[in-house]
Amino acid sequence: MQQTRQAEEGMVRVQPDELRRFVSSLLTTVGMAAEYADQAADTLVTADLRGVPTHGVSSMLRGYIHGMRRGWINATPEMSVVSERASAATIDCDRGLGVSLAPRAMVMAIEKARATGVGVITMRNAYHLGMAAYHALIACRQDMIGICMTATPPAVVPPNGSELRLGTNPIAVAVPAGRMHPFVFDAATSVVAASRLQAPKRTGASIPGNWLADAEGRVIREPGPVPEEYKLLPLGGSPEMGSHKGFALGMIVEIMCSLLAGALPAGMDRRSPFNHFVAAYDIAAFTDVQVFKQRMDEWLAAMEETPPAPGCDPVRTPGQGSTEAEADNIDKGVPLRPDVLEWFEEIRAELGVSLAVPAPITRP
Amino acid sequence: MQQTRQAEEGMVRVQPDELRRFVSSLLTTVGMAAEYADQAADTLVTADLRGVPTHGVSSMLRGYIHGMRRGWINATPEMSVVSERASAATIDCDRGLGVSLAPRAMVMAIEKARATGVGVITMRNAYHLGMAAYHALIACRQDMIGICMTATPPAVVPPNGSELRLGTNPIAVAVPAGRMHPFVFDAATSVVAASRLQAPKRTGASIPGNWLADAEGRVIREPGPVPEEYKLLPLGGSPEMGSHKGFALGMIVEIMCSLLAGALPAGMDRRSPFNHFVAAYDIAAFTDVQVFKQRMDEWLAAMEETPPAPGCDPVRTPGQGSTEAEADNIDKGVPLRPDVLEWFEEIRAELGVSLAVPAPITRP
Repeated sequence: MQQTRQAEEGMVRVQPDELRRFVSSLLTTVGMAAEYADQAADTLVTADLRGVPTHGVSSMLRGYIHGMRRGWINATPEMSVVSERASAATIDCDRGLGVSLAPRAMVMAIEKARATGVGVITMRNAYHLGMAAYHALIACRQDMIGICMTATPPAVVPPNGSELRLGTNPIAVAVPAGRMHPFVFDAATSVVAASRLQAPKRTGASIPGNWLADAEGRVIREPGPVPEEYKLLPLGGSPEMGSHKGFALGMIVEIMCSLLAGALPAGMDRRSPFNHFVAAYDIAAFTDVQVFKQRMDEWLAAMEETPPAPGCDPVRTPGQGSTEAEADNIDKGVPLRPDVLEWFEEIRAELGVSLAVPAPITRP
Repeated sequence: MQQTRQAEEGMVRVQPDELRRFVSSLLTTVGMAAEYADQAADTLVTADLRGVPTHGVSSMLRGYIHGMRRGWINATPEMSVVSERASAATIDCDRGLGVSLAPRAMVMAIEKARATGVGVITMRNAYHLGMAAYHALIACRQDMIGICMTATPPAVVPPNGSELRLGTNPIAVAVPAGRMHPFVFDAATSVVAASRLQAPKRTGASIPGNWLADAEGRVIREPGPVPEEYKLLPLGGSPEMGSHKGFALGMIVEIMCSLLAGALPAGMDRRSPFNHFVAAYDIAAFTDVQVFKQRMDEWLAAMEETPPAPGCDPVRTPGQGSTEAEADNIDKGVPLRPDVLEWFEEIRAELGVSLAVPAPITRP
């Protein structure tokens, strides 16, 4: 699962709906249709709410606005179905943002799954997806298993290799439970995503050995600060710890998102930096939904009640932390760094947006 | 990918077809229908040919025969479709062996995929699957992406946990290429499968740190011999190396194989030790098959040509080693340990099988 974090000291909090409206207003001002802008805003704000700020407003919005103003990202994409059967389709995304388009593709997958049991959609020629779990959760709320993957620009070396050949290529799977939180996995197929390195880079804190390779591809075995130059390693880290497995999982993501969509894989493609994949499996096509959800409840609870090893924290399950963060942040407000509000003021003035910047919530 | 091995010193080699016939003959003698026995023999012999003897004749056949003689494994299972839609089905396997039944389920998945683009089948109430890649490859030969997973008995602790909560739950994915070998991934979602420990246990050789937990669930950080008591760890090994990712992948396998099939997950189930999952994605439903295979060729070749890091072996891709092993072993004969041929003589006499034990191939 992506690293979910408690809001840090010094963060300001704003009302989620105010933030959504403001973000959407910025996006429509740079040319996005209102419907796509509202969707993008919800995808971003939900990442912040679920404790994944690396995929939220603070980290992503500037780049999206910049890309649309420069014309790299198409603000008014027209999705076209390139190939289709009852349970499958390939969509060309016309250089549009995955944050806006993947929810539509997932709705198409859900409709197919409702009819046939399964819906699988590949999305080529797109831009950034946001938090993959967002899209998987759309299916989950329809009592389906939701799957979402994205093939990202090269950042990872193969086991024994010296050059970047794969993206961090995350996989998200969301599965509904009953009274318990849904199972939500969302993780890079590299040991860590680049975003995990931001804090240690800033603070100079030591990172574990086997997290990174040096510029020539050698695994950095010893703990230490993040070096000036580095390359990411596949999940597992070193070959003896099974990095061939993380590497293969990253290749599977590339196959499902890029090659199956008729796009070139990362490193062989100069056109679009991202291709995506969404799928929905309708639980009712396989088994009784209520029994399934009740067993998910019992199983997740049993996992979380596993006696910890001596001196260890409690056992956590995928989705537990993000569900807790979301409840907390809906209650207290979306946490943002103060500099983001400053940038909001600047960009608002620059673009001539009439809507006011969301006001920080003050608590008694 | 599963550890593929060059045949060790002292192995004897036998003709693949002779071995298939002999294995099938043993299985029919303990009550299996000829069709199922032939299928089981091919699944096992193919594992030996592809350099995965842990899932081949030597390692598995004794247990299967024992299980059928004792009645745990049903030698004459009747598969029944519990639930079905155009792209989905759940099958009850009537306590039959996955090695015989999963190929049938995959054929059903392929037929669904041919009609709708995708076919997904869950298989509950079954016994051992053999090499998962075998079943994935059936779809691959039909120009489809084949997926196969199996939820196995508990052997793995959760991150921070002290008790076994998941099986090694492997995932196999097979993807066709053109002139290159197919992409074939087949790996446990634990750091290593139990079978990887047999050799170091026998020889006393040291294994890397972070491969295992001790009896209380503490990660064994330092290299050393395999301890008397141990527990397997999820892929990643330790929490700071991302073992929550391996854990979540193992849970996804359990969800897809067990919960989605209406079966209880490992640790909550007293009835059947294995549940399986097979799926086929028809490439032609998404994109042009010939272009897809040509790009797979180029991409696999580019990966394998990645300049190695200083002092490292060449970069390998999933399926490369097993394809090479298969070509070599088809040429030279299936490698078996000499004690397996001795056991063949014993069990042949005990069961009253008329067929002779395969003769070792002698080379000039």
